[in-house]
Amino acid sequence: MAFTIRGTIMQTPTAEHLQVLQDHVVTVSDDGVISSVVPGSAHEGSVEVTLAEGEILLPGLIDLHVHAPQWPQLGSRLDKPLEDWLFEHTFPLEARFADLSFAAEVWPSLVGGLLGLGTTTAVYYSSIHPGATQALAAECLRQGQRAFVGRVAMDHLEGTPEWYRDSDARSAVEASHQSIVDIEALDPSGLVRPIITPRFIPACSDALLEGLGELAASSGALVQTHCSESDWEHQYVIERYGVTDSVALERFGLLQTPSVLAHAGHLTPDDDLVLAGTNAGIAHCPLSNSYFGNAVFPLRRVTDAGVKVGLGTDIAGGADPSLLAQCAYAVTGSRMLEDGVNSAVDAESRGLVSSRVDMIKAFYLATVGGADVLGLPVGILEAGRAFDAFVVRTGDQTSVRRWPELDDDEAVFERLVRLARASDIVSVWVNGTEVQTRQVS
Amino acid sequence: MAFTIRGTIMQTPTAEHLQVLQDHVVTVSDDGVISSVVPGSAHEGSVEVTLAEGEILLPGLIDLHVHAPQWPQLGSRLDKPLEDWLFEHTFPLEARFADLSFAAEVWPSLVGGLLGLGTTTAVYYSSIHPGATQALAAECLRQGQRAFVGRVAMDHLEGTPEWYRDSDARSAVEASHQSIVDIEALDPSGLVRPIITPRFIPACSDALLEGLGELAASSGALVQTHCSESDWEHQYVIERYGVTDSVALERFGLLQTPSVLAHAGHLTPDDDLVLAGTNAGIAHCPLSNSYFGNAVFPLRRVTDAGVKVGLGTDIAGGADPSLLAQCAYAVTGSRMLEDGVNSAVDAESRGLVSSRVDMIKAFYLATVGGADVLGLPVGILEAGRAFDAFVVRTGDQTSVRRWPELDDDEAVFERLVRLARASDIVSVWVNGTEVQTRQVS
Repeated sequence: MAFTIRGTIMQTPTAEHLQVLQDHVVTVSDDGVISSVVPGSAHEGSVEVTLAEGEILLPGLIDLHVHAPQWPQLGSRLDKPLEDWLFEHTFPLEARFADLSFAAEVWPSLVGGLLGLGTTTAVYYSSIHPGATQALAAECLRQGQRAFVGRVAMDHLEGTPEWYRDSDARSAVEASHQSIVDIEALDPSGLVRPIITPRFIPACSDALLEGLGELAASSGALVQTHCSESDWEHQYVIERYGVTDSVALERFGLLQTPSVLAHAGHLTPDDDLVLAGTNAGIAHCPLSNSYFGNAVFPLRRVTDAGVKVGLGTDIAGGADPSLLAQCAYAVTGSRMLEDGVNSAVDAESRGLVSSRVDMIKAFYLATVGGADVLGLPVGILEAGRAFDAFVVRTGDQTSVRRWPELDDDEAVFERLVRLARASDIVSVWVNGTEVQTRQVS
Repeated sequence: MAFTIRGTIMQTPTAEHLQVLQDHVVTVSDDGVISSVVPGSAHEGSVEVTLAEGEILLPGLIDLHVHAPQWPQLGSRLDKPLEDWLFEHTFPLEARFADLSFAAEVWPSLVGGLLGLGTTTAVYYSSIHPGATQALAAECLRQGQRAFVGRVAMDHLEGTPEWYRDSDARSAVEASHQSIVDIEALDPSGLVRPIITPRFIPACSDALLEGLGELAASSGALVQTHCSESDWEHQYVIERYGVTDSVALERFGLLQTPSVLAHAGHLTPDDDLVLAGTNAGIAHCPLSNSYFGNAVFPLRRVTDAGVKVGLGTDIAGGADPSLLAQCAYAVTGSRMLEDGVNSAVDAESRGLVSSRVDMIKAFYLATVGGADVLGLPVGILEAGRAFDAFVVRTGDQTSVRRWPELDDDEAVFERLVRLARASDIVSVWVNGTEVQTRQVS
């Protein structure tokens, strides 16, 4: 049903501009698309939802990189060495999703938890299991989250354990194909869509990568994988193919549809040129990179080169499920890249000059940036885009206090992004449907 | 009144050991001191407080570095260049505390906000104003927070603006002395205590530093200041005195009583030796350092050298008021120091090997570490120490979900530290008195 909502909007139409629309009315059509955004004084007719004093309406957040089966591990095991993290904890956890009853325990918590943080769109790695993957897509649909859900393909005899891999390339491609068919049949509306998901090059045989590239061409489905995440992974690909991830993925036909490349902290300037000429975009996962990336993604350089970039949590390599928090981690990481970390090195050679980004740019990446990577008409509240949005409470009883004598719009916005917690998010809409509300005292 | 509390305790008696006491009973005497901690099965008599399923009792957190008047700026202005941050925003904000009505607006929010995050002890920089400083001490006492409150002393004609400084060294020392007398008179119990607070060397004349060193000797009061925070500040002191901060502060007699040195990211190994031989300890403020420190504090090297270290938020140079969050930032920062940040540099020379610390060590610093720096008998729940503690809810309706099939104690603890939010903290005690409770639905 069409409805209107009245209040103050904060959003970032460009990476340099914070737009604050005081007392505006958003009209949403029956199909969930915004038909107009006008000043309250110019609106005629009824208003169904009026934001309370201190509440702010923002465009929904887009998480480009979530390992759904790792949700039960969130916030733990990060002190373990990478090998233990992967083979003793992460792969065994993912392998449990052969059991649909375990999936039924985890998926509602995951999808509800992310929606409650304002994540209106999520791009999920599921597990290798068709059943759990289909159940995840169904759960997104049930809770009303916009999502891309990918069955993980991985068959490499050295890069994966024998107890958690596809049996061979051909059956893996077929399972991924069937998952596309099944998810499209589940949701003809397209709110929840399939995505082709080779785990990463070290986990996939050449035959599998080729087969999935062909599947992308024939199905038109999006693709997601990891790209130049760490020293080890980046070097592995160079040794296997003589080229970097970006080039190898392009050769396998994995960058022809909109592709989400997670991490990419070790991209070279040449890689920037490759990616800027494709449909691929990057899921920058700043907190995760601090643990598993061995470096900070050169965000400013890569966006300056014209590559599309959005943000991701990388649950559960990234311990914080909030995209607002990822905005702050992106800003913080950019400052650490600019200044360097080791005080025993001269200040001049310690960091990488001109690397810092500000909070406006970070929020742009979490909204418009992610929408551009996925080719979705969301990310800004304006006529013609779907109404994916959330409301944050600010003021005395919240994490986002207000000081009218001191604050300007930019200060309020930065504080909101840095400090709003799940308990401050009171309403979430996806495609015009209210999918979560929180009672506040 | 004496009371008992029964439930599960998690704490870190050493920097390497997580202690989990399932179903224990803590008995607290009339004076707020713990008289015993015994297994529930060994307890005879009544129990006044029984924790609910999923609730965990932890020792209270100690924030070694808070700029109280910067609270209204929390989470904002961090995209500004340092000079603007300081002279256009921070100093003008601090100068407003000449107005006691403004202080009356800010202090209750600050003290209540920190208590609500489990910060049972805070070490405050106030402003230069005796009135606002006394009001802050009174507010800590009113809300029952253990605190050190310091009137800021700063008189340097170049390092401070003329509209926000002490008029001269002599009057500054006298005002700091009077503040000690006034705070001690306010609270003979010693829950709230004065602390001598030269802002930092660049803001203080030699005469002021000398006078405050003498005041430390005559009063026995603790001292706090900043130390080797940034490239600029570290070099400034070397140029002014020919020695580093640590040595200069020791010469001025500012390290003879327990002293809290904030930041210290640019300490040299020689400084480690100086500090290990004094009563001084460091307030490591990891998030703030990412913005204003130009490097990561070499936490592991400095603690290995025997220097005392605790954690601080550095509100509002640090945008996150939670000490639990600072634990996570400390771990994250240590990983970034170890690995380095600039992927264009060879992996071998990018970072500083053997720099990482784990969450157990970080929590130890936020509790026992801070207590040791301040010489307070808190930080662990054991007989003979004051009962400063807080309770975190975990489980489905919280930020700290539980997965009994997967979790061990260490996983639950790490997740709790990384993910617990103010909304999950339901009770806070200081010195045996419950100072905050939160209703949960």
